[in-house]
Amino acid sequence: MNNTPHAPVTVIGLGLMGQALAGAFLKAGHPTTVWNRTPAKAAPLVAAGARSAPTLGDALAASPLTIVCLTDYDAMYELLGANGVEPDPTTPIDTTPIDTTLINLTSGSAGQAREAAEWAERRGARYLDGAIMAIPPGIGTAEAVILHSGPEQVFADHASTLGALGTITHLGADPGLASLYDVAGLAMMWSVLNAWLQGTALLAKAGVDAATYAPFARQIAAGVADWLPGYAEQIDKGSFPAEVAALETDARAMEHLIEESEAMGVNAELPRLIKAMADRAIAAGHGGEQYPVLIEEFGKP
Amino acid sequence: MNNTPHAPVTVIGLGLMGQALAGAFLKAGHPTTVWNRTPAKAAPLVAAGARSAPTLGDALAASPLTIVCLTDYDAMYELLGANGVEPDPTTPIDTTPIDTTLINLTSGSAGQAREAAEWAERRGARYLDGAIMAIPPGIGTAEAVILHSGPEQVFADHASTLGALGTITHLGADPGLASLYDVAGLAMMWSVLNAWLQGTALLAKAGVDAATYAPFARQIAAGVADWLPGYAEQIDKGSFPAEVAALETDARAMEHLIEESEAMGVNAELPRLIKAMADRAIAAGHGGEQYPVLIEEFGKP
Repeated sequence: MNNTPHAPVTVIGLGLMGQALAGAFLKAGHPTTVWNRTPAKAAPLVAAGARSAPTLGDALAASPLTIVCLTDYDAMYELLGANGVEPDPTTPIDTTPIDTTLINLTSGSAGQAREAAEWAERRGARYLDGAIMAIPPGIGTAEAVILHSGPEQVFADHASTLGALGTITHLGADPGLASLYDVAGLAMMWSVLNAWLQGTALLAKAGVDAATYAPFARQIAAGVADWLPGYAEQIDKGSFPAEVAALETDARAMEHLIEESEAMGVNAELPRLIKAMADRAIAAGHGGEQYPVLIEEFGKP
Repeated sequence: MNNTPHAPVTVIGLGLMGQALAGAFLKAGHPTTVWNRTPAKAAPLVAAGARSAPTLGDALAASPLTIVCLTDYDAMYELLGANGVEPDPTTPIDTTPIDTTLINLTSGSAGQAREAAEWAERRGARYLDGAIMAIPPGIGTAEAVILHSGPEQVFADHASTLGALGTITHLGADPGLASLYDVAGLAMMWSVLNAWLQGTALLAKAGVDAATYAPFARQIAAGVADWLPGYAEQIDKGSFPAEVAALETDARAMEHLIEESEAMGVNAELPRLIKAMADRAIAAGHGGEQYPVLIEEFGKP
């Protein structure tokens, strides 16, 4: 019943993202119950066929699957009565059982996700943590990547319903994984953009416009992306033979990048950070090995 | 004649890369003359059908197209007598005409490339600067990207011969462009690798091996690469409406990346640099605009 095309679902939290999630469930034909602290936000969804729950308890009881999408984890604890997580002697711990599966798509850290999973277990709920790698208008399309982590069976039980939201993935049993993959993916996003901006700024000084340079940058980024699975094998083996180039050869070219950035009058902080990381690995004796040996530097506090 | 399938070509400088270049010309059927300061390095190429020129002058006279691939620009000036570039009162300026087209694939800066183009013009040679984005074993395959800059007609005259080396591109008339695209492309390469290492290090602390994480990182990098042409339009228009997300929203997630890196005990320098660049743009009043507005920060010394 849970995993049928028309399983009921509840959405708690109707910010822009929560509204998009509820809208996608409605569009896919799921009986959808919604709840928000400010009930007025439910109006457009009710007009589209959703049911606005009169109380939070009613919202939780309405469906075998409840999506939570709030500002932060504290907002969830405040709503769902999780004082027990960080005991506050002035407030009784809420021990009312929660008989639904909670999918928490609220942004937070891996540590917060693991705490929330323990809290949910104490309250009798099934729990998955999740991260949305999309903007609200993308929800309900294949471009919306939604990451989940927690018990695999819980994901399997609800995958059909969750699939209404976009491209869904289960990363593993550790509830913190969705959050970690999320920030790791964002680090990749910002790094590709920053490297592109560095090149765009350099080439602008030579009169090349951004549109002319962009296809080149795109080709390099996509090409290097294809190396990652092979390079990952070197990391898992802990062996970094210089099949393509030795780190000390890279370091000489990094010096060129710094010099060129300085000579052209553009910011050289990113080039200097690139070289500083490589120099440390070379100082540690890895100059004759290949780039992924830098994992040792990235893995240190 | 220059641009026929079997036009003669000369290669000066037979390091690992020079040998690979000469080998690719031979394989494509071009009569190939080679010269190296240490003639012994020519032996394997001679065995494969190359002619070893007895003198440098003979090597330059042997072909309408001469590829130069040396350690650095100074090595080229020393060999070809370019004392006139930075006049040395103790050495007479060499003004012997050079009647060939020089394609200089030696690594150097945009400034060095422009100086070399002026020097070559004074000596009567046609000149293109170039950059090889490949390792020696890749030369002669489509994977070897070779960038050229300088007069378009010179490139057109020799494109058929140069095509034996890999995927060749002409970037524009400014001889410095090949070098600038080269370092910009390398900045992208290192940035994708560093972001991937950051994520790999974070996930390793949660027990995820590199091979498990790599396909995700690859997908994000390739996906973001696809945004670049669209984002480039914002830069060329100088208008950065927050169609996807405002910079201040990014900045909050950047703080999560820093906190997560610190909490997991991995290096947080890259996350901090990412946030520092964004914070500067926000301080300059761009928090409500979209990521590419950072071009203003990257474009400053």
